[in-house]
Amino acid sequence: MSSDTNRQGFEILCRDQGTQGRCGLITTPHGMVHTPAFMPVGTQATVKGMTPEELEELGVEILLCNTYHLYLRPGEEVIARVGGLHRFMNWNGPILTDSGGFQVFSLSPLRRISEEGIVFRSHLDGSEQFLSPEDAIRIQRRLGADIAMCLDECIPFPASYSYAQESTARTLRWARRCKEALGAQPEPLLFGIVQGGTFEDLRRQCAEELVNMRFSGYAIGGLSVGEPHEERIRMVEFTINHLPEDLPRYLMGVGAPEDLLTFVPLGVDLFDCVIPTRCARNGLTFTRFGKLDIRHAVHKYAETPIDEECGCYTCRRYSRAYLRHLHMAKEILSARLLTLHNLYYYMKLMARIREAIHQGQLKAFQEEFFRDWNAQKAQAL
Amino acid sequence: MSSDTNRQGFEILCRDQGTQGRCGLITTPHGMVHTPAFMPVGTQATVKGMTPEELEELGVEILLCNTYHLYLRPGEEVIARVGGLHRFMNWNGPILTDSGGFQVFSLSPLRRISEEGIVFRSHLDGSEQFLSPEDAIRIQRRLGADIAMCLDECIPFPASYSYAQESTARTLRWARRCKEALGAQPEPLLFGIVQGGTFEDLRRQCAEELVNMRFSGYAIGGLSVGEPHEERIRMVEFTINHLPEDLPRYLMGVGAPEDLLTFVPLGVDLFDCVIPTRCARNGLTFTRFGKLDIRHAVHKYAETPIDEECGCYTCRRYSRAYLRHLHMAKEILSARLLTLHNLYYYMKLMARIREAIHQGQLKAFQEEFFRDWNAQKAQAL
Repeated sequence: MSSDTNRQGFEILCRDQGTQGRCGLITTPHGMVHTPAFMPVGTQATVKGMTPEELEELGVEILLCNTYHLYLRPGEEVIARVGGLHRFMNWNGPILTDSGGFQVFSLSPLRRISEEGIVFRSHLDGSEQFLSPEDAIRIQRRLGADIAMCLDECIPFPASYSYAQESTARTLRWARRCKEALGAQPEPLLFGIVQGGTFEDLRRQCAEELVNMRFSGYAIGGLSVGEPHEERIRMVEFTINHLPEDLPRYLMGVGAPEDLLTFVPLGVDLFDCVIPTRCARNGLTFTRFGKLDIRHAVHKYAETPIDEECGCYTCRRYSRAYLRHLHMAKEILSARLLTLHNLYYYMKLMARIREAIHQGQLKAFQEEFFRDWNAQKAQAL
Repeated sequence: MSSDTNRQGFEILCRDQGTQGRCGLITTPHGMVHTPAFMPVGTQATVKGMTPEELEELGVEILLCNTYHLYLRPGEEVIARVGGLHRFMNWNGPILTDSGGFQVFSLSPLRRISEEGIVFRSHLDGSEQFLSPEDAIRIQRRLGADIAMCLDECIPFPASYSYAQESTARTLRWARRCKEALGAQPEPLLFGIVQGGTFEDLRRQCAEELVNMRFSGYAIGGLSVGEPHEERIRMVEFTINHLPEDLPRYLMGVGAPEDLLTFVPLGVDLFDCVIPTRCARNGLTFTRFGKLDIRHAVHKYAETPIDEECGCYTCRRYSRAYLRHLHMAKEILSARLLTLHNLYYYMKLMARIREAIHQGQLKAFQEEFFRDWNAQKAQAL
């Protein structure tokens, strides 16, 4: 970590009383992030439907962008020539880029893993591509990431012990190569990713070896891939016990509202997930009392907003009847207004979580959240 | 016209010296419209991709909404129950609704015209529907239009004289029924539509009879349906000569930038067209020097905005390289940013046209416009 030279890094501001939850501050070349934080996903250098100014107004402090997508289109060269991702997309806050590995596994119609890296086919044009740990670091640096991720393999669920063992060992070797590729450069911050499937000994071994390599933060990867909910909780809890207290922990790809209230109390600092934005485009919105499906016929004549308690632009101005109409008519404004609402909901929820931690009341807030959330009376409101 | 009771109506503010162009003011229940004006199209109760606040900031004073679409979805009942179109879509300025006739002819897979009205099939679900002149007025009133249009038949091009004669006579009878359906109500303003194909005597007869019925304004319909450019100009010029000086003239569905500079000098006051919004979604943008296609490979690395002279949000913040990427990646933000630019271009152009009229310099401005526009050097800028 390079906090000596330019004060980048992580600082814990306070800890909750009854849980492992904590509030912190990540300092990056493009500013600070208050944790626990939720990172909206800007896959193709845009959070679908939103301008950067709108995100800023919502209180978004950090975005995640997908290296795989940007590498294929428009290509690292385009973004690098224009001066990097921040300038390209007009977002001046911190950006975390993933390594591209996860998307290679989930989107590429063909891939072949070797010690050297991953051969895959572009989902756009079928062209053969190659991604090594060194490539992943080079691309993320050229994109101008504030936080970069090591190239890893996300192990599917279920996986045999022997496959998980072999894969995790390779992920560790790749992590070392990523660290070396970055060299002594202070930027970006580089996070290691703990894999190991659902096997405790592999998770522990992976965490310990990564910690020995001294990354700026640690991610828990390979979850939310189909494993049972209890298994996910067990793995997060177990893995966090093997990570340093004083560095950020990032739970990758997990981030339904219930997840935030499940994993912050276990000590997770960072989340990313497409749920708020993708659900919005599908007509699903969030309220204190659960999900509200704007497509539902019950909203046809409804003059009420999505959530009468909500202060977002969408809820201050538009009826469910109008929002339902826009969605049914496949209007762009539907995606905009519902995304705005869902991100507002998320940002507000994270702010309340941080506040609860500051007050040492996270447990009580968690109970209150689940009581309301499980009431499932949003539709009828 | 009801200007006696509530001052609705039209006032001419000034006339150009060398052309028939004039500046005016239309007063409606929801405020005033400075003419010549361009009306962005909000087909389904939304100008695709834009919020009402954004339109207002762009200087948009009046929108056009399509009765046909809104009648089919969400239905007049939904909009009426929520309190009308203005409240439904959160737009507090004037709204002009068309009668639904044009879309019936262009979108419905089947239609049958009788004296009574039009039987057609919904393009959404194939259901059989019926629209009479009285229906068209009832629906537009329930939507809460500020300016309503008479139900007419848009004669295709080419059409035989006998068909055009028969159709125009029916359009006139329907116009009378529309006027009667409105009764003595002061709202909405009701415009008659001059049809007659490309036959001067039919156009004259239609105009004269409509004028005798005393509408609040007159539209020139049935153009931009495939007729040669010269024919269109001839018909507009000819028709306007048979319309009252002191009432607004609306050229329906015509509105490429060149059209605005062609027809304002002939005395047209109102335009509507999907060009700025639809082109934006297809990657076509407007500049002083002609159209710029953002998809063009020449923009791949371009750090310049669409138009360096333009002061719109898009041009102040985003490079062509980024806009091209967004469009190629089919991102929602592309439609937003390019629509914003194109509408800004249109609003600015209309403001400059009005200014030129006030200065008695419309002819000179027209020449300047066409000199730059035809230079076609936008792509290379």
